[in-house]
Amino acid sequence: MRNELLSLAPEFRRNPVTGSWVVVAPERSQRPMALTHAEPHPRANGDSQPCQFCPGQEADTPNEVLAYREQGSPIDGPGWRLRVVPNKFPAVRPLKKPGTTSNDLFAHASAFGRHEVLIACADHHTNPAALSDEQFCDMFRAYRERLVAHDADESLVYAAVFQNVGAEAGASVGHTHSQIIATPIVPDGIRHELESAESRFAATHRCVFCDIVTHEQSDEVRIVAESANFLAVTAYAPRFAYEMWVLPRSHASGYESASPSQLEELALLMKRLVHGLDKTLDSPAYNWFLHTAPLRSPELPHFHWHFEIMPRTSRPAGFEWGFDCHIVAVSPEQAARELRKQMH
Amino acid sequence: MRNELLSLAPEFRRNPVTGSWVVVAPERSQRPMALTHAEPHPRANGDSQPCQFCPGQEADTPNEVLAYREQGSPIDGPGWRLRVVPNKFPAVRPLKKPGTTSNDLFAHASAFGRHEVLIACADHHTNPAALSDEQFCDMFRAYRERLVAHDADESLVYAAVFQNVGAEAGASVGHTHSQIIATPIVPDGIRHELESAESRFAATHRCVFCDIVTHEQSDEVRIVAESANFLAVTAYAPRFAYEMWVLPRSHASGYESASPSQLEELALLMKRLVHGLDKTLDSPAYNWFLHTAPLRSPELPHFHWHFEIMPRTSRPAGFEWGFDCHIVAVSPEQAARELRKQMH
Repeated sequence: MRNELLSLAPEFRRNPVTGSWVVVAPERSQRPMALTHAEPHPRANGDSQPCQFCPGQEADTPNEVLAYREQGSPIDGPGWRLRVVPNKFPAVRPLKKPGTTSNDLFAHASAFGRHEVLIACADHHTNPAALSDEQFCDMFRAYRERLVAHDADESLVYAAVFQNVGAEAGASVGHTHSQIIATPIVPDGIRHELESAESRFAATHRCVFCDIVTHEQSDEVRIVAESANFLAVTAYAPRFAYEMWVLPRSHASGYESASPSQLEELALLMKRLVHGLDKTLDSPAYNWFLHTAPLRSPELPHFHWHFEIMPRTSRPAGFEWGFDCHIVAVSPEQAARELRKQMH
Repeated sequence: MRNELLSLAPEFRRNPVTGSWVVVAPERSQRPMALTHAEPHPRANGDSQPCQFCPGQEADTPNEVLAYREQGSPIDGPGWRLRVVPNKFPAVRPLKKPGTTSNDLFAHASAFGRHEVLIACADHHTNPAALSDEQFCDMFRAYRERLVAHDADESLVYAAVFQNVGAEAGASVGHTHSQIIATPIVPDGIRHELESAESRFAATHRCVFCDIVTHEQSDEVRIVAESANFLAVTAYAPRFAYEMWVLPRSHASGYESASPSQLEELALLMKRLVHGLDKTLDSPAYNWFLHTAPLRSPELPHFHWHFEIMPRTSRPAGFEWGFDCHIVAVSPEQAARELRKQMH
């Protein structure tokens, strides 16, 4: 009954991890959209050719740092099924050593780091859901391999793994690919999650993500899909409607600790989720990202790695960008009901 | 010389107020945009009629809470030049009293508050820069009037004032309007700024915004425009390229304390800035928002009200949404040079 009420009454909700408040306001879905392009674009887009990520174009990218390829096929030549290369237009560069300036008001540092592109398939698929099960498994296995590689570089502190699908979600290239940005700083979003989770742990002696798993399993209303070791739920206090979190049921702070069979299970669950998202929202643009512990962390009792899948269901405006308060027009419980119907 | 280097080498920069790191990476501007709609839309958009904000349509909006109108013209009838009405599709509603539930993991509360629309002109202008000087002055005077009104309601704690211009910036209606969302919580973005500014004040005994004014006046490289009492600069560590901050030179934490003549001066400076932004970036979508102290605050020594103008110069992607780390492809110094040329 509470869910039915939610479809009527707007509600503030607090993100259990970060403490951020959002507004769930179903009435907002009724407002007229007078302006052209006021709704986010669906994913389907024009995509100019030739594609620099397709086989035969290997010379267009920097030399590969990882590839899954046919036995005997040449490095930086065709014959691969997954390929990781440095980003040709990087946000951070491996050339300089880190070092912050001493002006504490206007602090800056060389944008040292590694910015990599993980090309997830040889065929020019622009829809991740079109990838085979094996290609999905390759992707999640390769994430782990790159994290392990960056763990070995002591000048790096964090590696951010994410995927942009569709122009509305910030993709500039259609060919399915993920990105990894490894930096000498912990990005604010992760630092904030770590700090919040740690202070909660200090008070409760429990991991907030373990608490979420326990409560979501028992509440059931936000469960989208499950597997033996993973739980997929709509976020309790999302930034975009239909946002999902995918959590290991058992506590682990670093993605590197996942076993090959767990990663396969995760990959197949993620594939089901994005397929169900496509069917529910008619192929929206979306991102997914991995939140994991900093590189070389010991096992942290308060943090729990997980994926977030964030579809672009609205255009954030002044309240979001100016005040960090997000408004969603579909309740997470309603979103979970719709998503569940499309899962198989 | 340092500015010339910046146009080549990517750099991490820390927001002096919040401590958030961003990346300034001019090389990113060279990446190919293969996907259609990979660039944000400019502001020019189709705009369906009839417009619910135009004179004669007053019955389409809830009853006005403030209007500047011709002597003797009827309340909720034509004859106004500025009108503030409750939002017909509100994110928060005045019906319920606040109250947070006791489940500390999944906290929620009734989305109590006031969501108002400030219709800034009677003519159907979709470009704020097309408003007259008087209309601009009316707008900034009305912001103050509504803040003072919300100050009187002790169930409200914060009033967020912002403007969305163009669909890409989250506007759904073209007719120039601002919004005010008053809530019983301090939105996270403001809470974070207040806390950061307060801890800096504890260490330095100085307001960080006053420090910024002093340093920007002396550095000069990020100044876009000035007036007797205000300084407009590009943000040192922006979330979007060409982001601007407009700061009173003298310390004051609450917008309510500004005098009528200061508000006129501010309005005319803001008009010059958005006009210059239009010319520099060919009429981008943008937001502006007011950061001011919570309602009924005493004068705070550590906080300093200001406006931020945030044009949509890129499409935030996984690194931004997943890790709260923004990448801009134009340095703030370069942006200031370009903007200065278009100011008059």
